[in-house]
Amino acid sequence: MEEKKKTLGVQGLLATTAVAVLWLSSLAVSTEQTNQKELRFGVKGEFKILQVADMHYADGKTTPCKDVLPSQMAGCSDLNTTAFLNRMILAEKPDLIVFTGDNIYAHDATDAASSLDAAFAPAISSGIPWAAVLGNHDQESALSREGVMKHIVTLNNTLSQVNPPGADALDGFGNYNLEVHGFEGSGFENKSVLNLYFLDSGDYSTVHAISGYGWIKPSQQVWFERTSVELQRAYMSEPEAQEAPAPGLVYFHIPVPEYASVNSSNYTGVNQDGISSPRVNSGFFTTMVEAGDVKAVFTGHDHLNDFCGEYTGIQLCYGGGFGYHAYGKAGWSRRARVVVATLQKTDEGSWGPLMSIKTWKRLDDENLTTIDVQVLWSNGTTGGT
Amino acid sequence: MEEKKKTLGVQGLLATTAVAVLWLSSLAVSTEQTNQKELRFGVKGEFKILQVADMHYADGKTTPCKDVLPSQMAGCSDLNTTAFLNRMILAEKPDLIVFTGDNIYAHDATDAASSLDAAFAPAISSGIPWAAVLGNHDQESALSREGVMKHIVTLNNTLSQVNPPGADALDGFGNYNLEVHGFEGSGFENKSVLNLYFLDSGDYSTVHAISGYGWIKPSQQVWFERTSVELQRAYMSEPEAQEAPAPGLVYFHIPVPEYASVNSSNYTGVNQDGISSPRVNSGFFTTMVEAGDVKAVFTGHDHLNDFCGEYTGIQLCYGGGFGYHAYGKAGWSRRARVVVATLQKTDEGSWGPLMSIKTWKRLDDENLTTIDVQVLWSNGTTGGT
Repeated sequence: MEEKKKTLGVQGLLATTAVAVLWLSSLAVSTEQTNQKELRFGVKGEFKILQVADMHYADGKTTPCKDVLPSQMAGCSDLNTTAFLNRMILAEKPDLIVFTGDNIYAHDATDAASSLDAAFAPAISSGIPWAAVLGNHDQESALSREGVMKHIVTLNNTLSQVNPPGADALDGFGNYNLEVHGFEGSGFENKSVLNLYFLDSGDYSTVHAISGYGWIKPSQQVWFERTSVELQRAYMSEPEAQEAPAPGLVYFHIPVPEYASVNSSNYTGVNQDGISSPRVNSGFFTTMVEAGDVKAVFTGHDHLNDFCGEYTGIQLCYGGGFGYHAYGKAGWSRRARVVVATLQKTDEGSWGPLMSIKTWKRLDDENLTTIDVQVLWSNGTTGGT
Repeated sequence: MEEKKKTLGVQGLLATTAVAVLWLSSLAVSTEQTNQKELRFGVKGEFKILQVADMHYADGKTTPCKDVLPSQMAGCSDLNTTAFLNRMILAEKPDLIVFTGDNIYAHDATDAASSLDAAFAPAISSGIPWAAVLGNHDQESALSREGVMKHIVTLNNTLSQVNPPGADALDGFGNYNLEVHGFEGSGFENKSVLNLYFLDSGDYSTVHAISGYGWIKPSQQVWFERTSVELQRAYMSEPEAQEAPAPGLVYFHIPVPEYASVNSSNYTGVNQDGISSPRVNSGFFTTMVEAGDVKAVFTGHDHLNDFCGEYTGIQLCYGGGFGYHAYGKAGWSRRARVVVATLQKTDEGSWGPLMSIKTWKRLDDENLTTIDVQVLWSNGTTGGT
């Protein structure tokens, strides 16, 4: 990948007198990822993403499981989370692993950095690129949210970013995007045919009048919408100028309030946990709809929910609880979500733009049982755009 | 007022290759108003704002009234709107007049510029400073939203701005803020003790998946929040450094969805029209709550609603329909909202920071009857902050 780094960031806050206040902010965003292992569709025309939600990792072997059957309790620990992740990686051989927050349960972690190292160890040792965002529990130790994200980006094989280069005015830590390029040798080899967006959905409200969880702020939404505009402009330009944007998938931790607007008759999977969104709507769902490229959103946070359901043209999905030190439901298997995007075959026998996006879940049982296979989006069908 | 103009705006969009996209945007905001007639609290320690909602002005004498009693119909026209505005200005002698959109009903206007001139004529000739934002009907002619706003700012005595200087990246037209300074000769004479924010709430959704009205976009919210931060910083700095922000009032046309969350037992006034918000929540209410300085919001759009009601610490108010060519309800008087902010008396017999914000409405009847007097905010009371 060509190394082109150019940061145009500049931010200044200056106030002159009470009658003349000047404010300048800039959000400079580069979608070029420093040190990024290139993400690209392979010879089978597929790109597979494993989502791991809510590991709640703490101290490893000495950290007990929660909410498992009495028969499973003896010897059950964070290492069961590790084992499940290793098995999932072996079984699915994903092209990317995405951790959607509450990666560690920092409150129970003796040393947050060590917990992070251990939590991500299977991903790191697999050699597969991986990306993480923060949940609301990752910072509950001496390590701040910024500190956690800064530690994550030092780990091997991660594509995580603290924030895009130069975007000093951005709220939160862990807002970035990744491009997945088309098949090498095809007309799409230098185009991003699938766009992945990662955002920090915060932890808790810091506003006196509002209790509960945090939310995605306007500055993050401006970054997202401008990034989407630029990606769409590039995709719809030569070579192989396309008429519609490349599909986008969005990953963050806390579900937006619109998850509660999905009609339960549209669920694939279950909602048995309630939907713990922030108590206010900060507008990110609207911003995603308006952007026009987002086909699906993937969150965690509510461990006992694992549904996907369409609302206003976007599939709103949960990952399903993964971690054994996280609250769960005894007898209801820990699980993970897999997404596979597939390219369209061209007349010349090569690969073109995206044809479909499918998803399913795997349960942490003897056979890693696959459930709830569904199509999230397919090119040319109604409801997809 | 000191003339300090400094525009730091810079915006660039450049993309290099498909793998390296650079985006730079800046929102440069100056709260210094070019040509602004200074807004300031007077010797009585009061500042009075008249809100005029939904004039729906068209061609003047030849444009008939809507929804008046049969006995009022003969000879009833836009000139009744003009007469009502003249009477209100005489009766209340406001320090500022704010027009909250649908100033003209452009669909019925032969020439939009002439309609605007006629609609604002009483304000212009009064010599009182005035400010306007756009509704969803102002642009329904050959004149675009930008064109309407550009015409408005040329009119006499207006403090309206198309957008803040340098803020090229801002969505919409008519986003700006005004400062109201403390009593001359007091410690607050160079401080803004009351902040007024004006925003463009759009007209109609341009997003295929969402029908209905437009909304306030993330870029506008970033501008608002950064402006609020700077105003708060200045107010809480020397001289007369305050411990809490100066109260803010926000004016725009289309109510945010949270208007529907106000418990009707909290209403002063009526909701007999339904609440015609956009069908999606773009988060501006959350942004206002988070900013921390906003005490009340004033919209129009639903002519038969005139309530104020508190929700999450902010009073959400309607102006009540003003114009005679606007839909209304026969026998239910056209009306306007007045807000008076009052300063605190200091021990030295001068005026200090804000003490209270009151509101009432006046009906267009023989006596311009005053109704629904209420306190929106007072310093030190609960619920105000």
